[in-house]
This record gives sequence, structure tokens and C-alpha cells, in this order.
Amino acid sequence: MTRGFYIGRFQPYHNGHHAMVEHIAGEVDELVLGIGSAGDSHTEHDPFTAGERIMMVEKAVDEFDLMTYVVPIEDLNRNSVWVSHVQSMCPSFDVAYSNNPLVIQLFEEAGIEVNQSTMFDRERLAGSEIRERMVEGERWADRVPEAVAGVVREIDGVTRIQRVAGSDGS
Amino acid sequence: MTRGFYIGRFQPYHNGHHAMVEHIAGEVDELVLGIGSAGDSHTEHDPFTAGERIMMVEKAVDEFDLMTYVVPIEDLNRNSVWVSHVQSMCPSFDVAYSNNPLVIQLFEEAGIEVNQSTMFDRERLAGSEIRERMVEGERWADRVPEAVAGVVREIDGVTRIQRVAGSDGS
Amino acid sequence: MTRGFYIGRFQPYHNGHHAMVEHIAGEVDELVLGIGSAGDSHTEHDPFTAGERIMMVEKAVDEFDLMTYVVPIEDLNRNSVWVSHVQSMCPSFDVAYSNNPLVIQLFEEAGIEVNQSTMFDRERLAGSEIRERMVEGERWADRVPEAVAGVVREIDGVTRIQRVAGSDGS
Amino acid sequence: MTRGFYIGRFQPYHNGHHAMVEHIAGEVDELVLGIGSAGDSHTEHDPFTAGERIMMVEKAVDEFDLMTYVVPIEDLNRNSVWVSHVQSMCPSFDVAYSNNPLVIQLFEEAGIEVNQSTMFDRERLAGSEIRERMVEGERWADRVPEAVAGVVREIDGVTRIQRVAGSDGS
Amino acid sequence: MTRGFYIGRFQPYHNGHHAMVEHIAGEVDELVLGIGSAGDSHTEHDPFTAGERIMMVEKAVDEFDLMTYVVPIEDLNRNSVWVSHVQSMCPSFDVAYSNNPLVIQLFEEAGIEVNQSTMFDRERLAGSEIRERMVEGERWADRVPEAVAGVVREIDGVTRIQRVAGSDGS
Amino acid sequence: MTRGFYIGRFQPYHNGHHAMVEHIAGEVDELVLGIGSAGDSHTEHDPFTAGERIMMVEKAVDEFDLMTYVVPIEDLNRNSVWVSHVQSMCPSFDVAYSNNPLVIQLFEEAGIEVNQSTMFDRERLAGSEIRERMVEGERWADRVPEAVAGVVREIDGVTRIQRVAGSDGS
Repeated sequence: MTRGFYIGRFQPYHNGHHAMVEHIAGEVDELVLGIGSAGDSHTEHDPFTAGERIMMVEKAVDEFDLMTYVVPIEDLNRNSVWVSHVQSMCPSFDVAYSNNPLVIQLFEEAGIEVNQSTMFDRERLAGSEIRERMVEGERWADRVPEAVAGVVREIDGVTRIQRVAGSDGS
Repeated sequence: MTRGFYIGRFQPYHNGHHAMVEHIAGEVDELVLGIGSAGDSHTEHDPFTAGERIMMVEKAVDEFDLMTYVVPIEDLNRNSVWVSHVQSMCPSFDVAYSNNPLVIQLFEEAGIEVNQSTMFDRERLAGSEIRERMVEGERWADRVPEAVAGVVREIDGVTRIQRVAGSDGS
Repeated sequence: MTRGFYIGRFQPYHNGHHAMVEHIAGEVDELVLGIGSAGDSHTEHDPFTAGERIMMVEKAVDEFDLMTYVVPIEDLNRNSVWVSHVQSMCPSFDVAYSNNPLVIQLFEEAGIEVNQSTMFDRERLAGSEIRERMVEGERWADRVPEAVAGVVREIDGVTRIQRVAGSDGS
Repeated sequence: MTRGFYIGRFQPYHNGHHAMVEHIAGEVDELVLGIGSAGDSHTEHDPFTAGERIMMVEKAVDEFDLMTYVVPIEDLNRNSVWVSHVQSMCPSFDVAYSNNPLVIQLFEEAGIEVNQSTMFDRERLAGSEIRERMVEGERWADRVPEAVAGVVREIDGVTRIQRVAGSDGS
Repeated sequence: MTRGFYIGRFQPYHNGHHAMVEHIAGEVDELVLGIGSAGDSHTEHDPFTAGERIMMVEKAVDEFDLMTYVVPIEDLNRNSVWVSHVQSMCPSFDVAYSNNPLVIQLFEEAGIEVNQSTMFDRERLAGSEIRERMVEGERWADRVPEAVAGVVREIDGVTRIQRVAGSDGS
Repeated sequence: MTRGFYIGRFQPYHNGHHAMVEHIAGEVDELVLGIGSAGDSHTEHDPFTAGERIMMVEKAVDEFDLMTYVVPIEDLNRNSVWVSHVQSMCPSFDVAYSNNPLVIQLFEEAGIEVNQSTMFDRERLAGSEIRERMVEGERWADRVPEAVAGVVREIDGVTRIQRVAGSDGS
């Protein structure tokens, strides 16, 4: 049995993340999905709460035939204890998936195997672009799984990001 | 669609919790299971990490036909903001289940409906008794779902609680 | 111009505190009233929020001819920086009033004059006794200024302390 | 009886704030003045401690015929619990005054009425301009109530901001 | 080259600790001395600040021919990240010395070798007994290295512990 | 007996710091070296842990005939209590050495003598330049004491800073 770990801020969870999870699903039996910066919300960079992001991820990954654990990870602002923090909050895992240089370095110093993928860079850009499109009132829903679009609508997420971005009329 | 919220420390998740979840499963469509005091571990009162408890709960509730979200909740040590903290970390819910007087009071002051049940008291006692049995080397595994017993064995949990309880020979 | 400093948890502000403030009013021109453990609430030992205690104190001291500043002081759990914390949160003061051995020691190590009074001990006892009376459903309102009794009733404070004390029938 | 809530960093409290409070005084019976980022001080952006700002505000609003409560609010760096934090630290209020998009969004999601005013924008600019004038050694005292200018002089505030801005001679 | 790690609260550093360091000095080339609960002070259980304890330890161990590093370790209140916290604050070490069940368990789960010694129990008792003697005004100085007695006198430590213990006359 | 205090982030400790310590050694009998931002590591601005920096400093200053105390100082993010925090973590000192405007202001407001030196500016620049050279793969070792270069090599520090700076190949 192999358990993988994949972390992102998922602001929001989008098609790039989804393709990545599908890819990982072919390599592991179970997957821990860490929701990073879990305490942040209501900013343009981090509009959604951890609870809202849990709902997005759980509903989206439901279509894969894969046992998943979705775990919010609050920031500790101490890189040197971050790996221990993650390990204490999550079911134990055998391999981490990341292309973030800091995450890779921290896991490798702790002796944990990291799988890198070129798919990651595209994702990072995608998240920021989707938030911009929400702020600007452009089309964004085609870039996320349908379940995610439903959650964003249910919580009136576009209005929220537009307001906290200070873009509503000023 | 109704979503419920049920919180416990789950140190460990046992048959009393399990009966409670089965009971709630008949009343709601989805259930958020909050893992309280998520940052505590390695003490006699709180031996298991949040990650270990997530694994216990997820594996045990898998047998019910119920969409569940298992969410670790770190203590903030500020009762007055606890409800907001829980709400931001969890998918939104319509009703909370608890028999803890503080939890009931906090939710009710926040205008959230709370369902009480006499089943709760028995649970609380059960958790403390199971930990004592582990420390004393007595039989405990028949008081938890089989999946939980498996997790405790995998992480050598009994040795841990015996050591941190200072009970190993002194 | 002399400004004094007087700190208490004020759970609740009662006749003993009130007599003390009246006494201090004869010695200083202005008084800073620090509300200690400002973040604590909803327990038997600390039932009321800082906001509720501010209201109690402000309304009660209004009858004295004294410029007052009521300032909530959150705990830092670091005795060695507590005096600096208090000083940064409050208008500067010339003399502190306390009979608490720790407070006296910390202020004196920082070179701040402390006035002690035997009135203090009676107060400390009074607070704990009033909370017990609330929990037990006995008469308490005659032991606090009328304005304080009004605040407690407005927020249904007796029900709260009875519930969090676990005394409501179980 | 109506109680309002108005929050600002008040670095320093100036004529724009003062006009705003005068305006609000016509609409409410009592006013809670929240001092935001209470823990910040000794930087160019936040030169004054909470205690110094309390003194500025209390002395300035004394001229209005209005019951006021001046309450320092420490940052929690968790937007999702900020409203609860404010509510626990302050006397309860019926309406909030703000033009800050984040504050408005947070209060509205919590079901609290917010009054906006175009006066707010001018204030925000004014604060930053006054600090720049202090740093540059230009005239600033005509832009704040007289009581505020007195406090700044008493604490030698201009020297402080000039030094921490690194502007003294480099 | 072997580097050891030995942690204690050192409230105060006494002859039992000193004998232990002498013993360890025969086994390692360098020794990291961790000062636990570094943020605690001014209580009967933890009377001395980290800075005062650093001075006690540095001056006392100066007599040994051993390279030492004395490092204050603030509590994080998260057992699961404690080892990482210690490792990030200290020069790297090969072996830890402890008889504290929790410390042993945490280091062993992290794969770090721990040397136990029966000398430890006597120490723990000794610290508590010395503090009691200080509070009661009995002889204590013969139970600590001479350098430590000098530091306690210099900071008037006996008066402090007597006051915060509330033992001065009540 | 005079004890001095000199604080820096020491990322890494370099020839400029070393010259400064040598200079101070001529003025004091003992020196406390504070390691600032002790909790930060694994970033381009703060690559090394407190433990690694302690080792750099201790080994480098060993050549001077000076009693030194090397003390990690974690950030509190509260300027108004920073001096108390430093004082509680360090052996007491008579004079501070700094050219940082904020540090000077905070110490002076607390009534502590500060010695300024023009040597400081050069240091600050030097640290940032050395880190850039490490990232770019240029020569840096001639700008730090030999003992420091040894520590950086032992922990493979150049690889770490290159990775977390995101500079390895992207």
C-alpha cells in the first residue's frame, strides 16, 4: 500500500490540480490532500476559507476511484518545523508530490521522497489567473471542475473576491 | 440536504462515538466530524496526533452510507471566537450534535441549532477508560471499531501512551 | 497630574472593586482600569467577555468624578514582558494599585511604584463567591453596583455561567 | 438606544476621523471606537502604541456629548474570526461604520449592518500624509485635534517616527 | 567528534545537573545544554528568566574542559513538532541525554538515540526541593555550584521567589 | 565588569560582524551576541536556522579572548515589548551596540545606553551580498571567517539557499 501527499492552497481547486490528482491516482493507493494556508481567507490572494476549499476538493475528487484524506494545514511561519507539523496533522505518507522549491527542500532535508512534475507550474499560474478573472467579472467557471463552480456560486464567492479586492466601483 | 457537525477529541475513536455517528447518519445527509484539540498528542490525556485520529475516523466511518468530512480543529484558547474558527475550517453545517455544556452554550449564543443526546456522556467516560486500560496493559481493543484497533497497532500506540504516562516500570 | 493604574479580571466588577476605585479616586487625577485575561470568557472562572466587562466597569465608574480609561489586557503568558505589554496598551501611569504578589513583584522589578491595600484581598474572595452564587441560583445582585447587575441581566449572564459550569441539571 | 462601532488605526487620530465621529454622534447614542492593529508601534506606518492612541482619542472625543468606549483591538491575522474577536472585545453594537472593503465584507457576511460614507477615503489618505509630514519635519499639527497634538508632543512622537523611518541624517 | 544534548529547566541549575554534565563530559566532545520552558519566569515553579539561567549554566560549566552551547528553548505546546523545534534552535547533535519519559519517546520516534541515566530522577527532585528551601528561608546554597549561588544573590532571586510564592507574611 | 549586547541576524556571520566583535571586545569584559529572527530559516533572506548560526558564531568568536553568550532571539512581532523580551532571554547587559534605527530607538526609550558605529552599515550590505553570491554560485567564502565557511559546507548551505531562492534551473 502506498500513500501519497499533495499540498496546495487550492484558491480555488482547478483543472490543473484535478489533472495532477488524476495523474497521482495512477501511482498511489491513497492520497492525502493538504490544504495549505488554511487560516487565510477573504483576501484577493486567498479568498476562500479552509472549509469552503475542503468542500471544493472533496466533491471534485469524488469521481476518482481513490481513497483520499483532505486536511487543512494552518501556517506556523516556522519553515524548520513545517514538515513535522504536516506529518502530525496528516495520515502518514510515503511520497510527496510538489514542484515548489521550498517544499521540496524541506521534505528532502527530512529524508522524505519527493516526486516532481512539470505539471505543477502551470497550476500555480492557473490559480492566480482564475482569481483575476473572478475579480474582473470574466469567464472562469470552465477552468475548474463543475463541483467547484457550484461551491463558489453557493457561497457567492465572486462577490466576495471582488469586494475584498477593492474593485467594486472604486 | 442537511449537513450535521459532530466534534470530539477521539482519543481514540471508540464504539460509543461509532454508535453516535450511526445514529446521526439517520438524521442528516452529510456529516462533518471535527477532531478537537488537533494540536495535542503524546500525553496520557491526548496520546494520538490529529493525523492518526483522522485515519481512525475515516476508516471506521467508511462502513456507513454517509458522505463525511473529517476536519482537525486546533485549539485557539479563545472561547468567544471558537464558533467562527470551527465554521471557517469546516464545510457549512445546519445542526450541531453535542452534550458538552460549553459547546452547546457557544453554538446557541451564535444562533446555531444543537441536538443533544444522552449517548454522549457514556462516550466521554469510555474514552478515558480505554486510555487507562492501554496504560495498564488491559484489554481495550473490543471497545473500538476494528479499523481503529488496526491503526493503534500500526503506530505502536500502546507503547507510546504507556511511556508518556510514565508507567513503564518506575 | 497623577495617573494611577488598577488591574483586575472583573468577573464581575463588584462592590469591593467599586470601593477600591472610590478610594483611589481620592489619590489620583486620572485612572486606567485594566481588564485582565481579556481573551477569556465562557468558563466558570471567567464567564464574561472583555466587551461585557468594559460595559460593566464604564457604567459603574461613571458616578465618580474621575477621568477613567478602561483597557482590556490580553494574556501573553510571559511574565517577563507583561509590564511592557501593559505599558504599551495603556495611557502612561505614575503609580499602580495592587495586592497581587506577582503584579507587585513585576512592577517593582520594572521600577514602578506600587500602592498596596488590604482592601484587595476581600475583593478577590468576593469575585469567586459571587460567581458561585450565580451558579447556585442564590442572590448576588446586592454585591455589585446596580449598573453591573443590569449588564449581567441584559446578556443573560447567569444562564451562561450556570451552563458552562455544567450545573444545569446533569 | 443605538450603539455604533467605528474602527481605525488612528496613526494618529486626525481631523478627518474627528469629523466622522461628529457625524456619527448625530446618529447613535453611544459609540465604540476600535483601535485597530493595537499591537503595532514604532514603525513609520504605525508609530504610536495602543496606549498613546487611546489617550489621543479619549481626549479628542471628550468635547462631543456622546458616551464613548475606546477599545484596542489586537490583530489575529485570521479574517474569518475577526468579527467574533471584535465582538468579544467590545460592548455590543447595532451598526458599524466603515468604508474599508474587507471590513464591510466581513461584517456583512456576519449579518451586521454597515453604514458607508465617502468621508472615509479622505481620512485614510490623511493619516499617511500626516505621518510623511512628521518624518519630513513639515507642519502637521493643524491637521489633528489640539488634544492629539499635545499627546504627540508629550511622548516626543515626531522624533520617534523620524528615527524609525531611518530618515534622521542618512 | 560526538556532540550530546542535555535539556532541563534549570530552575535553578544545581549539583545534580552538575554531576550529570561532568558524567556526560566523559562521553562526548561537545555538549548542547538546552534551557527548557525558556519563556517562563517569576513563578514558584519557574522563578528565573532564561537569561538568568544562561548565566548560571555558563558560569558553572566553565570549569569543565568541554565545548558547550547553552540554548534557551521556548515552549511551543505542540509535542509533535518539539523535536524539530529543538533541532532548529541547536547545533546538530548525535545523542540526547534524558530520563524524562516524554522527551525519550519524542526523540526515539524521531530516530534519535537517547541515553538514560538513573542520575536524572534525583535531579528533578532536587530542583523542587531547592525552590522550597528558598521560599521557606532555609539553607539552599550548598546544593548548587558556587557560581549559581552568586547569580541568585546578584538578582536577589530569593526575594523574588518568596514574593511570587505569596509566602511573604500572608 | 561591563557586559555588552550586540544583535544581528547573522545570515551568515561574516567578516564585517567579526571586525565589529573584535572592536567591541576592546570595550567590554563580556559580550552577549543575540541571534535575531531566530525562528526564520530556509528562505533566501534567512537561509540558516538558529542552531546553524549559533555554531557559526561560537566557532568564529572562539579566537577572541572574551567571555561570550550566544543567544537566539525569536521574533515576537511586538516592537513595544521587544526590549523586555531581549532582556529576559539574555544575561543582563550595560550597553548595546547597534546602528539599526529601530533598535536604537527601542533601547533608548527603555533607558538603555546604545553605542553606534559606522561599521554597521557596511555589515548589513555585506550579508545581503554574500547571500546573492551563494545563490549565483560566485565566490563567497573569503568574506566570512574560516569557521563559518566550514559550517556552511557541512550543512550544504549553498545548495539550500539556491533551491529556496528558486534559482536551480528555472
